[in-house]
Amino acid sequence: CLINILIEEFSDLKYNFLKHSVDSNVINGDLAIPYLFWMLLNIIPVLIGSVLVTYVEPIAGGSGIPQVKCYLNGVKIPRLIRIKTLAVKVVGVATSVIGGLAGGKEGPMIHSGAIIAAGISQGKSTTFNKDFGVLRYFRDDHEKRDFVVGGAAAGVAAAFGAPFGGVIFSLEEVASFWNQLLIWRTMVASVISSFVLNIVLSAYYGQSSLVYPGLFNLGKFEPLPFTYLELPIFVCMGVIGGLQGALWNFVNIKLYIFRTKYVTKKWEKVLDALFIAALSATFGSILMYSLNDCKPLGNDPIKYPVQLFCEDNEYNAVAALWFQTPEASVKSLFHDPPGSHKILSLALFVLVYYPLSCLTFGLNVSLGIFIPMLLVGAGWGRLTGMTITSIFPTMNLHPGKYALIGAAAQLGGVLRMTISLSVILIESTGNISFAFPLIVTLITAKWVGDYFNEGIYDTQIAVWRVPMLPWSLEPMFQKLNAYNIMNTPVVTIKLRAKAKYIYDILKNNHYNGFPVVDDNGCLRGLILRWQLVVILTQKLFVEKKRFWEKDVSIETFRKEYPRYPSISDVKLHMDKRDYTVDLKMFMKPSPHSITKDTSVPRIFQLFRALGLRHLPVVSVNNEVVGIITRKDFLKYHNH
Amino acid sequence: CLINILIEEFSDLKYNFLKHSVDSNVINGDLAIPYLFWMLLNIIPVLIGSVLVTYVEPIAGGSGIPQVKCYLNGVKIPRLIRIKTLAVKVVGVATSVIGGLAGGKEGPMIHSGAIIAAGISQGKSTTFNKDFGVLRYFRDDHEKRDFVVGGAAAGVAAAFGAPFGGVIFSLEEVASFWNQLLIWRTMVASVISSFVLNIVLSAYYGQSSLVYPGLFNLGKFEPLPFTYLELPIFVCMGVIGGLQGALWNFVNIKLYIFRTKYVTKKWEKVLDALFIAALSATFGSILMYSLNDCKPLGNDPIKYPVQLFCEDNEYNAVAALWFQTPEASVKSLFHDPPGSHKILSLALFVLVYYPLSCLTFGLNVSLGIFIPMLLVGAGWGRLTGMTITSIFPTMNLHPGKYALIGAAAQLGGVLRMTISLSVILIESTGNISFAFPLIVTLITAKWVGDYFNEGIYDTQIAVWRVPMLPWSLEPMFQKLNAYNIMNTPVVTIKLRAKAKYIYDILKNNHYNGFPVVDDNGCLRGLILRWQLVVILTQKLFVEKKRFWEKDVSIETFRKEYPRYPSISDVKLHMDKRDYTVDLKMFMKPSPHSITKDTSVPRIFQLFRALGLRHLPVVSVNNEVVGIITRKDFLKYHNH
Repeated sequence: CLINILIEEFSDLKYNFLKHSVDSNVINGDLAIPYLFWMLLNIIPVLIGSVLVTYVEPIAGGSGIPQVKCYLNGVKIPRLIRIKTLAVKVVGVATSVIGGLAGGKEGPMIHSGAIIAAGISQGKSTTFNKDFGVLRYFRDDHEKRDFVVGGAAAGVAAAFGAPFGGVIFSLEEVASFWNQLLIWRTMVASVISSFVLNIVLSAYYGQSSLVYPGLFNLGKFEPLPFTYLELPIFVCMGVIGGLQGALWNFVNIKLYIFRTKYVTKKWEKVLDALFIAALSATFGSILMYSLNDCKPLGNDPIKYPVQLFCEDNEYNAVAALWFQTPEASVKSLFHDPPGSHKILSLALFVLVYYPLSCLTFGLNVSLGIFIPMLLVGAGWGRLTGMTITSIFPTMNLHPGKYALIGAAAQLGGVLRMTISLSVILIESTGNISFAFPLIVTLITAKWVGDYFNEGIYDTQIAVWRVPMLPWSLEPMFQKLNAYNIMNTPVVTIKLRAKAKYIYDILKNNHYNGFPVVDDNGCLRGLILRWQLVVILTQKLFVEKKRFWEKDVSIETFRKEYPRYPSISDVKLHMDKRDYTVDLKMFMKPSPHSITKDTSVPRIFQLFRALGLRHLPVVSVNNEVVGIITRKDFLKYHNH
Repeated sequence: CLINILIEEFSDLKYNFLKHSVDSNVINGDLAIPYLFWMLLNIIPVLIGSVLVTYVEPIAGGSGIPQVKCYLNGVKIPRLIRIKTLAVKVVGVATSVIGGLAGGKEGPMIHSGAIIAAGISQGKSTTFNKDFGVLRYFRDDHEKRDFVVGGAAAGVAAAFGAPFGGVIFSLEEVASFWNQLLIWRTMVASVISSFVLNIVLSAYYGQSSLVYPGLFNLGKFEPLPFTYLELPIFVCMGVIGGLQGALWNFVNIKLYIFRTKYVTKKWEKVLDALFIAALSATFGSILMYSLNDCKPLGNDPIKYPVQLFCEDNEYNAVAALWFQTPEASVKSLFHDPPGSHKILSLALFVLVYYPLSCLTFGLNVSLGIFIPMLLVGAGWGRLTGMTITSIFPTMNLHPGKYALIGAAAQLGGVLRMTISLSVILIESTGNISFAFPLIVTLITAKWVGDYFNEGIYDTQIAVWRVPMLPWSLEPMFQKLNAYNIMNTPVVTIKLRAKAKYIYDILKNNHYNGFPVVDDNGCLRGLILRWQLVVILTQKLFVEKKRFWEKDVSIETFRKEYPRYPSISDVKLHMDKRDYTVDLKMFMKPSPHSITKDTSVPRIFQLFRALGLRHLPVVSVNNEVVGIITRKDFLKYHNH
């Protein structure tokens, strides 16, 4: 079922090739052209990307990972996995990276993978779908989610050339529900994805063996030896990474809140993006022009050396950092031989790039957070290594090793992932012997960071106020019972209800699920808003039964999935208002329910384990007395 | 909370050092001594191990992984995680490996890790335990399970020097319930475990840097290049591995059933183990004496060269395979230069070792399956490589590479794991560039094998008829409803019940959970057998309330955990038979319940998600009409 993931890979690849080639042209083209032209070349692509995201499909903004995470948690996010979103995302991320913003393409690639996988699952599920009856509803959503998890893993596998990292990333960060079968499927998706990528890239670059490791390749490290003495340094770097990451998250979220308050109009958002793009170019130019950090040509693998004020046969080392894609800069920080960078110029670069990345993430463009954090971390990591070497010249540390540790610490501090980040870094550097220092650094960074705030994705999700089920309950809920948090009174519907009544309750409130009760008020079923809307749209009334009885099946409802009509699209004619609806035919019978004395942790466990959205609360005699939804577990939504 | 895992590592290490040194002595000692002495040296340790396992603690037999898996699924396995079991396991595995049985120490090490982790959690939880009230019961079991998962991961990390492999192994194979927090904890446990191991081993072997990679080290491979052409060969080897693995599982299970039927007495079991030990020595001797496969000394890293009928300065290559621990043999198959082995001798070795390993696994000794499978696979893998080279001499394949692929295929065919096996193999060979062929082989092997039967662990669990909840429901249950599978009539207890009544129902049936009902038969709670026994033992009757009211708390019940008294230990005096028990004080209030029309897949989902053991079935008015337990989902238990 996941072989079709390869389609995804092809499209991902296409836009990446496009991007890469345009990249090269841009960078080649403006060698001799000064600041303003650079700025223009920054602004135009960003303008395109930003306009697309702002006016066409706002959901395509950002990295997309938190959104996918919410979706997998069972939160409905409109238009998250549509083809249109995919198109905007692909163009948006390509233009933004070309535009030189401090962002990466990895997050959006993961989102793209998820969208394509969801698309595949939809095509599939409409092809063979007659076997399971009513259960099929439920099962469908679940299966689609499984595909999305696989797609996200395939996205990681393609982005980083890390099939294992993809599986573990999906598991650690993205998925909310997990089972053994899913691991297996995700693994197959990841492997196929990286295999296809390998073949295509090998063909593209004209290599004959399957060695091209992924779109994002940090370059192979030689086995890096390390000693006991270095471990405390690594731990310290982890602490720094954790602190910096926590600061970054804090500032970024404040910025986000500021933006949602004051940058509300659409043209303002576009202008915001353009401003940051111009700022990037400005800072870059200032640094390049003011620092005279010249290196002889020929030693280092710089693609586009910039001469500037240097002698012939020399190039400007600062310009080299800016006149590359961020990926290439990371690579040079990892692999350049000791002495390639001056401490001053690297320090200034980090000092500029750190706030710049913070300003950039949260703009209305499609951009990920992974690469800029890697770059910042590699920058200060290398700086640390260089500083230690200059103080204790006897130690002679490999600065590239410290760049790698710094990158890990920074990423760990911002994202708060451990095992998936280390596996991804190991896979993309192709060096397993360095696993231990990496994981020590990442664990330290996560520990320190978690003391202050949550990872950037979770922080974003919390700011959006999405009713996502967390992994564990807030302590304040531990001692409560169902009656403390339930919503009451509940809008219930009788087993046989008048069309007018249904129409009115749908019009007058925004609930998504309604308990169905018998004449004694006992719980008999649960029906969802969209099902009721479909019933009204299709006029499935008892009185007209002879007209529709034969045609109506699960298909009537499945046809509408996933773009349900809204109640405002329904027009109920006067003469149909007194018709009756027999909900027994459509409702989900015998839903899960709990009594009002059940403790909240037990209820939460039920929600968490089953991914519920609505849970009716009943009395001892099974009479509906309340309803609990996901929102009731969230702190700020407390009564 | 998991820092204490290091205690585990120390003990694991100790017995390993012991074993290793004894190993060496054995092998050194009998160089000149013929067959019978070898046999004796095989039989004596096996005798000790087998007697210990058979007479002292039968649960310590086998690898322990399936048992831990059942435990984590929520199945109660008596004495699985006791200190006594640990002691028997440690001595048992050491003696068995010394005794030269075709088994490994890895499975038992994982079990040991789990036991020690559980022990730590128990100590912890009795130290600070006053906060959560009734919930604490539930929570306790869960927390202990989390510790066991972490311990298993730490065991893998220590056994293979593979911290990532440990986490992923726990996830893919062992755990039944999983959440984000668990990943993080498991990761920390794994890292600490491998760190401690590193330090201890480095200290033991007198190395100064942290490079000792684990107890089980397959030796570093140089980066192994591979071409398109070789992929079909790898896939074919995967197919062979899958077929062989399926055959192995099939024969092993038949043997197991045969043994449970005909080898029932305890002394028979010991004799069985001794017989196999003697058989190992016999086969080894026959091969060694009959084949004259001499190699010049000095080229290969053989520890104990055996001269036998060879010239001076030569050694017997067959003897080298037998006169080593299986780990060392695997290492030589991986790393010996091309031409170290004759095709004939290797083929005979595989032909002997394959059935031998199948005979051995299932004996009443503590032994794992990992190493023998690795050895068999490496054997036929190397054979494949050699055969291909001898047919197409131009291809000049590295036989060690094929040994690795063969080992992966064999393991995949028997165990049916993919991602964790590949990560473990990658970590223990320290070579990440070969990940892709490995995973392709493993996926093929699993696919082919799954066509015939399940993995060896799941097959064993199925044979034991343990009520383990599978990951998905058998198709035959898809269309059923609760009333098709529920047990009826149910033994219920009123909210206030007579002591005599409770005593009688406990005596007269073996149920573990009883629904508590009010006078109308409505479900009010659930109470477990052991809780009732404690109530009777402690005489917590309403009439005597003034005596115990102040002293009884959650502690009264917790004190007994986890060694509950049995009902046969309870003596109910005649004068106390009419006393009343108020169950309202002790029962779990408002348990989960379902109506009798609920579909079985929905019920299964509930069991699966919450790890339930008993689920009362109620009518629309909440009257108890039946009860569903895990057994009702198992095929062979069908009504």
